[in-house]
Amino acid sequence: MSPIDYSQVPTPARCYADFCLVPIGTGNVSVASEVAEVQKLLKASGLSCTMHSAGTTVEGSWDEVMKVIGQAHSVVHQTGVVRVQTAMRVGTRTDKAQTAEEKVKRVEELLRKDGQSS
Amino acid sequence: MSPIDYSQVPTPARCYADFCLVPIGTGNVSVASEVAEVQKLLKASGLSCTMHSAGTTVEGSWDEVMKVIGQAHSVVHQTGVVRVQTAMRVGTRTDKAQTAEEKVKRVEELLRKDGQSS
Amino acid sequence: MSPIDYSQVPTPARCYADFCLVPIGTGNVSVASEVAEVQKLLKASGLSCTMHSAGTTVEGSWDEVMKVIGQAHSVVHQTGVVRVQTAMRVGTRTDKAQTAEEKVKRVEELLRKDGQSS
Amino acid sequence: MSPIDYSQVPTPARCYADFCLVPIGTGNVSVASEVAEVQKLLKASGLSCTMHSAGTTVEGSWDEVMKVIGQAHSVVHQTGVVRVQTAMRVGTRTDKAQTAEEKVKRVEELLRKDGQSS
Repeated sequence: MSPIDYSQVPTPARCYADFCLVPIGTGNVSVASEVAEVQKLLKASGLSCTMHSAGTTVEGSWDEVMKVIGQAHSVVHQTGVVRVQTAMRVGTRTDKAQTAEEKVKRVEELLRKDGQSS
Repeated sequence: MSPIDYSQVPTPARCYADFCLVPIGTGNVSVASEVAEVQKLLKASGLSCTMHSAGTTVEGSWDEVMKVIGQAHSVVHQTGVVRVQTAMRVGTRTDKAQTAEEKVKRVEELLRKDGQSS
Repeated sequence: MSPIDYSQVPTPARCYADFCLVPIGTGNVSVASEVAEVQKLLKASGLSCTMHSAGTTVEGSWDEVMKVIGQAHSVVHQTGVVRVQTAMRVGTRTDKAQTAEEKVKRVEELLRKDGQSS
Repeated sequence: MSPIDYSQVPTPARCYADFCLVPIGTGNVSVASEVAEVQKLLKASGLSCTMHSAGTTVEGSWDEVMKVIGQAHSVVHQTGVVRVQTAMRVGTRTDKAQTAEEKVKRVEELLRKDGQSS
């Protein structure tokens, strides 16, 4: 394999990231206010976002998505939280641009065909 | 601190786990059929489950939830997949039993009060 | 496909889990004391464990590994922490029993062959 | 609370990310060659990195760290892999710059004091 100039490698044009941010050391068991703050930031970003009970899925270019999650850390730090931890799953694919919604539909279709979906 | 007999420590009576299972080495880019197989297993378990585009959230006792996710690996292996990887976020709390649905509502309430929710 | 009796599906005989446990709502930024408590529990379990800066990797049967991580939540709750969250990556494979150590060696070998390892 | 201009929020100056990248749909059970490719990219980045059996920990500014992980996806796509998934844990703190190595030492110290470390 010929040598690669790694500094020139681009980041993916499209990705999804599902993340769950946790503030540490707040003395407050509820994280709802931090989550709400992050939701406002995400909304302002204009990226496609879906909140669920265990996190939020964001879609966009790699750089946009990672920027907004980094900003989410900063927004939570600005409320006085000293330490923030995020668990994230990120996916990229080169064959097609499949939205989050389409992925769920595809599975539901398979379940329907199988006569198992209620 | 007095010594603890660690073998007697119980596992939590209640937890939620949000997981995303990935088959490796299948030669098939789509994972929808594996995900559908896992959804049928989850349904048969009787546990409360919510599928979203980046995973599935299961609620129940620690032992029940972990058992069904382990069975999910086995079910996917039984379809011929040699390697399976799961990313998981698990949460437990001792103060109250808050369902996945209630968590989302709590954040939406905060956003509404703030006049930001559309 | 013939119907599967899902209740009879076994959990995997072998897995590795890499996990990072976070206490929420403690008012204490450092999590080192909770991590130390968990390390003692893991040691007492007799399972093969490797601690690194971003988590701990445990190897054993699915049931043993998940039991000890559940007990880790309980041990941290017993110190007064109301909410505990864990991020975990779990892997199973049916072709061979490769230890954590062997996986790292395999990559290092590839890098050496490529003349890139220092 | 006064409105925040979210577009002006910076990303954190420092973070650690522990990530595990998985190629999907390759027909190859081993991921060692993809992992080796990513290690070369990481080395070329100049960021502080530690590989372990369940992933790699990278330290640096949020933007640098996320850029190199995005490039890792691209490098693996360039080898012909259509779909890539990464599980990641990211942490930021505003009180001190603690390296990965220091975190492990802190826990080992606590275990030693407790007379439990062998």
